[in-house]
Amino acid sequence: MTKRLGILGGGQLARMLVQAAIPLGIETVILANRNDEPAALVSKAVVGNWNDRTLLDQFAQAVDVVVLENEFIGSEKLAYLASKGVQLVPDQATLGLIEDKAQQKLTLAAAGLPVPALGLIESLSDLEAFGAKHGFPLMLKTRRNGYDGRGTAKIRSADEIASACAALGFPENPVFVEAWVPFEAELATLIIRSVNGEQCVYPVIETYQPSGVCRVVRAPAPFSAAIQQQAREVAQATAAALGGLGILAVEMFLTSKGQILVNELAPRPHNTGHYSIEGSYCSQFENTIRAALGWPLGDPQLRQQSAVMVNVLAPTSRALESSLIQTALQPQVHVHWYDKRSAKPGRKIGHITAVGADLSEVEARAQAAVDQLEQVLAEPA
Amino acid sequence: MTKRLGILGGGQLARMLVQAAIPLGIETVILANRNDEPAALVSKAVVGNWNDRTLLDQFAQAVDVVVLENEFIGSEKLAYLASKGVQLVPDQATLGLIEDKAQQKLTLAAAGLPVPALGLIESLSDLEAFGAKHGFPLMLKTRRNGYDGRGTAKIRSADEIASACAALGFPENPVFVEAWVPFEAELATLIIRSVNGEQCVYPVIETYQPSGVCRVVRAPAPFSAAIQQQAREVAQATAAALGGLGILAVEMFLTSKGQILVNELAPRPHNTGHYSIEGSYCSQFENTIRAALGWPLGDPQLRQQSAVMVNVLAPTSRALESSLIQTALQPQVHVHWYDKRSAKPGRKIGHITAVGADLSEVEARAQAAVDQLEQVLAEPA
Repeated sequence: MTKRLGILGGGQLARMLVQAAIPLGIETVILANRNDEPAALVSKAVVGNWNDRTLLDQFAQAVDVVVLENEFIGSEKLAYLASKGVQLVPDQATLGLIEDKAQQKLTLAAAGLPVPALGLIESLSDLEAFGAKHGFPLMLKTRRNGYDGRGTAKIRSADEIASACAALGFPENPVFVEAWVPFEAELATLIIRSVNGEQCVYPVIETYQPSGVCRVVRAPAPFSAAIQQQAREVAQATAAALGGLGILAVEMFLTSKGQILVNELAPRPHNTGHYSIEGSYCSQFENTIRAALGWPLGDPQLRQQSAVMVNVLAPTSRALESSLIQTALQPQVHVHWYDKRSAKPGRKIGHITAVGADLSEVEARAQAAVDQLEQVLAEPA
Repeated sequence: MTKRLGILGGGQLARMLVQAAIPLGIETVILANRNDEPAALVSKAVVGNWNDRTLLDQFAQAVDVVVLENEFIGSEKLAYLASKGVQLVPDQATLGLIEDKAQQKLTLAAAGLPVPALGLIESLSDLEAFGAKHGFPLMLKTRRNGYDGRGTAKIRSADEIASACAALGFPENPVFVEAWVPFEAELATLIIRSVNGEQCVYPVIETYQPSGVCRVVRAPAPFSAAIQQQAREVAQATAAALGGLGILAVEMFLTSKGQILVNELAPRPHNTGHYSIEGSYCSQFENTIRAALGWPLGDPQLRQQSAVMVNVLAPTSRALESSLIQTALQPQVHVHWYDKRSAKPGRKIGHITAVGADLSEVEARAQAAVDQLEQVLAEPA
């Protein structure tokens, strides 16, 4: 029998997995906290408190293979689902290596991969010593649960060590520190590893992330073939060092000296891969499903020369409804609206992709539609 | 508030409408006969006997605007839904003009549109007279409920009149007759008319329909710009003559004399438009939804030079499951599997689309994947 696909999480990543599952004839079941989450609105769902073992049992009975939309679920929940006979892609061992960002980076460093200099932090004096050795500024990060710039604090001088630690909740909340990386650009790619042994690599893209939040993704990255190749090799070596199956998003710095350093990893479909829905022959969502089922992987390459995705970020707190997107429905753009019921400023509530021959023209097309939409969203509800 | 989209029917057309609704943030509700129909598997659904007014009431309460996947529902059911405050796109008046194929063609003929010569049939002698005037063969058709070659019978000579009438259930089942059209090719296009007044026209395509069942769609139709333009004008005039809103599929003959004749109409997404999911900037499904909501229409033009869709037809009666499609997941094809639970020979159970620069290469790519899949499907379950 065809396997039933469980998705841990009810957000937009899960919603786009559901969309990709439909043409493949795959049944999806979402594990969600609320029944008005984006994916729970469009799929069968098991809804409730994930710490409730009865709920996990119910989910385990409804699915055969499970993928993630969030790496901070806690690998012990994956282990529990595995004990109930559910196949996990990635499995709890891989998630265990990734969910602690300090452990993740130490694993990569031990494998000889280029990562920013980092240090584990037991006390404020560890930070003083790290600053004395590597110089300021420093980047303080929580070991778990950080994303979109949350869980990070920049330390400009030794004077800011105490306040940064307090802001991140240290010592209750474990932290680590990285040397500051003066980068020229942020690059990313996706590696997909199927349970059937196949592997594919998506194009290397550039992501523009003011304040740590992805705003624009340009595919392919407008850098030389040599730099793209270097990034691809680092990403593939990263995946090899971590092991595991399914999708792995690898975000990298291109430093001002032309070096590639690994920045962040995620074992799930990633915002930097949304362009692939219309841009690639096979999207990151479809390939995530194929990889979990052990089906042949699709071609990750771009169908046309360029694809640009621009995120729609809520400008204000307000109630949302889908009919707001009408101004963004401009020619030759693809609007994805996540159907979140409310927004806080800066929250990702949709994205718009354009494809075509010329990267600059394509970006202008997508950006113009996002600008129109965000203008409407900024008006009082 | 954003309108909720009702879809009358639970088949693959409804399933692909659901897929298109997800990125637009639109909630769908299917009216289905069984809960294992392709669309009922992936959407909220109201399931039961459509002649049950309580069921229609329940559906009417769950939706704001309704589109069709089947024109043979009976316009009286649309009228009932309209009386419950539901907005219908198209409305019951338009469906009333289309659901009786003889009335449909007479309407077009009265508007001066090119249609095959036709006659209403009250008795067998009417057919003898029509044959004497127009010559044999003739095409006998039921006035309602025909599709995919069903509800038609070819009459090669006067001797076959009685058996053809019996085969179509005449006189209980009303029929009409058309003169035989020696055609060089079958063409089709889609007209979309939004409730906001906008209109768009899809590329003219060629459809290859052995035995009256669509097998291959080539976009654009590999004929001169003049022929494409002529077909587009006939289709637009056809839509204008019928009036109404929403999507209208217009199938046409290109005769051996280079004339365009209207063959069949359908006020719903159509098999000849499936290529548009990957082929066009905006698919027929997305534009059907936008038109019903009064949202701006998307660009129907092809993103790349060519798109070819090949239907997957069940070679034998057998149980189906999605994992069968694995052999069809070849590079650079897009597989759509409708998740029907069983197949009878010749039944449409999926389709595969390829896109690219060269029509012949694109067709070969899609056809090769379909051949692989149908070979697997022909094996004993």
